[in-house]
Amino acid sequence: MATPANGVEAEVVLFESLAALRAAPDDSLRGKITYVGHAMKRTQDGSSYGHFVRLRSAGAVEAGRRGAIATLIRSIGTDSHRMPHTGNMSYSSDVTPIPIAALSNPDADQLERMAQRGQRISIKLTLTPSYTGVVESGNVVAELPGSDLADELVIIGGHLDSWDLGTNAIDDGAGVAITMEVLRRIKEAGLKPRRTIRLVLWGSEEVGLLGGYAYADKHKDTLRNHVIGTESDFGAGRIWKITRNINEQAKPVADKIAELVEPLGIAPGSNSARSSGPDLSPMNAQGFPGFRFVQDGSDYFDLHHTPDDTLDKIDPAAMDQNVAAYLVFVWMAANSNVSDWGWPAEQ
Amino acid sequence: MATPANGVEAEVVLFESLAALRAAPDDSLRGKITYVGHAMKRTQDGSSYGHFVRLRSAGAVEAGRRGAIATLIRSIGTDSHRMPHTGNMSYSSDVTPIPIAALSNPDADQLERMAQRGQRISIKLTLTPSYTGVVESGNVVAELPGSDLADELVIIGGHLDSWDLGTNAIDDGAGVAITMEVLRRIKEAGLKPRRTIRLVLWGSEEVGLLGGYAYADKHKDTLRNHVIGTESDFGAGRIWKITRNINEQAKPVADKIAELVEPLGIAPGSNSARSSGPDLSPMNAQGFPGFRFVQDGSDYFDLHHTPDDTLDKIDPAAMDQNVAAYLVFVWMAANSNVSDWGWPAEQ
Repeated sequence: MATPANGVEAEVVLFESLAALRAAPDDSLRGKITYVGHAMKRTQDGSSYGHFVRLRSAGAVEAGRRGAIATLIRSIGTDSHRMPHTGNMSYSSDVTPIPIAALSNPDADQLERMAQRGQRISIKLTLTPSYTGVVESGNVVAELPGSDLADELVIIGGHLDSWDLGTNAIDDGAGVAITMEVLRRIKEAGLKPRRTIRLVLWGSEEVGLLGGYAYADKHKDTLRNHVIGTESDFGAGRIWKITRNINEQAKPVADKIAELVEPLGIAPGSNSARSSGPDLSPMNAQGFPGFRFVQDGSDYFDLHHTPDDTLDKIDPAAMDQNVAAYLVFVWMAANSNVSDWGWPAEQ
Repeated sequence: MATPANGVEAEVVLFESLAALRAAPDDSLRGKITYVGHAMKRTQDGSSYGHFVRLRSAGAVEAGRRGAIATLIRSIGTDSHRMPHTGNMSYSSDVTPIPIAALSNPDADQLERMAQRGQRISIKLTLTPSYTGVVESGNVVAELPGSDLADELVIIGGHLDSWDLGTNAIDDGAGVAITMEVLRRIKEAGLKPRRTIRLVLWGSEEVGLLGGYAYADKHKDTLRNHVIGTESDFGAGRIWKITRNINEQAKPVADKIAELVEPLGIAPGSNSARSSGPDLSPMNAQGFPGFRFVQDGSDYFDLHHTPDDTLDKIDPAAMDQNVAAYLVFVWMAANSNVSDWGWPAEQ
């Protein structure tokens, strides 16, 4: 934990973006606290997150490299509530670690207004995080065993871990519930799939996809048994689009899935989705074909990693729509004649 | 301050409403912590507040009377954010004071879900309020002096004090800004009204209309000089309705005001508005004719008395609309031939 700045009052130097901070000369922020504002833009598919989150990831390193004693950032979030958004960040071995903290959007607005009036701003920080050491996590795995193609896997799931501010209904209670419900309904209906349907509730997603990497490592000799799959980890909004990255052979079954879920309000998207979700991305990096149901995340980053991530934000009807789409996908993928959705040829 | 329950873990007894709590027998809650849920309903005119706020006002007395050691209530608010709403409450001389605290709506939901599952709930409260003693407040008064009818007053204003969680942009920075701007624009235009236009920025509204009562008392011999007026204290939403309580003689000028503000999207309401706003209500009680511009408060109780009451919640265009309506009202009232809008005949 880097908290040497606690209780020290220091002048605040404001930057508009991570790029502006990076343009500051080395050592130019000696003894200062930096603030970087860069208001995240709302998108339906959440695609702006990757761009804006770099400020949280890299802010401490970039400010520390230039001599700052701490850095504040505008929360990576789209709401206007007085709750900062937490999340993962990184240090670099060649830069002294300094504290980083996020301001809620209204507090960031206020700081920027003060600066715009020409006020000199100094801040005394008191941050109270503590490092609690390394603990063990785990992936929880459940299966509906297949019949004639039992060695082949269709894999779905959500992640079990979460930030500790809310009850984490949307990140990722929703994904866990949607995908567990899919297996429950198939089992309840007394149906037996040809391929094995594997549910993985991932551990330690938030701190760096540790469960995903551990899974890919543990199953490295049988990764190609994973025919297709996807993770539900973008809240509880309705699915509105399918993206995928599959071969010609799998196109008929994928198109049939798209046709069957269209009445749920879901439209086909591109065939260039390299990811099947965060915890499957280590497998995607090795060639696992991509498939995603894209949920409406217009309000996702209002709630993401805040105390506001609670059950009241979830519409049960939208959860039902997700379950229905996943059921179609899982059942079709587990029973079609297609076993190769696009793994590259073995080297 | 009543904090004897701090650190004591006690069983929670849930009630659906203040009426249900009142129906519990005396002494039936000995040693317990009560929780009363009663979710406030959203209305455009905010009229439901009077009904629901009784839970906050009377909750500690009603629970204490029955032997409870503390009471929790569902916040008097319409949002779904993890911020409880604060506000005024009362003790009674015949009941031992006990602590009262509000839960945010999502936390209240969670508590109620636990109870619905049949879980026995106990809570250990740690509350940290302190009584800081009596301090002096004040009303701030400014005037644009009148000409031939200078002794007659048209009175507007907002209140200066606020709860300490947010910056209180809507309660009541907006009302202060709207009514100050009205005087500024008249002055800037070089106009001189016939009657004196008095701006009062009220002190100590939140703790019981103390500024309003002090004003009515201080000016008790000249109250009838106050021809008409109104307070802006319902946020920064657009005005959509006029209500009033005036005599036949004032109807033509009031109707002319209504006609002039109609293009701003404002419709005439009833002639039964007994209040001219919280701080003028002590004068209304003595016969001061009522007049109010009713603002859209659909989101007012999302923000009211929470950390979320900040400037980003205000739409400048809505503020302009308010200023325009107040300008019409103030200028017409200050210059018409009508000096009697409906004070009752003197006894």
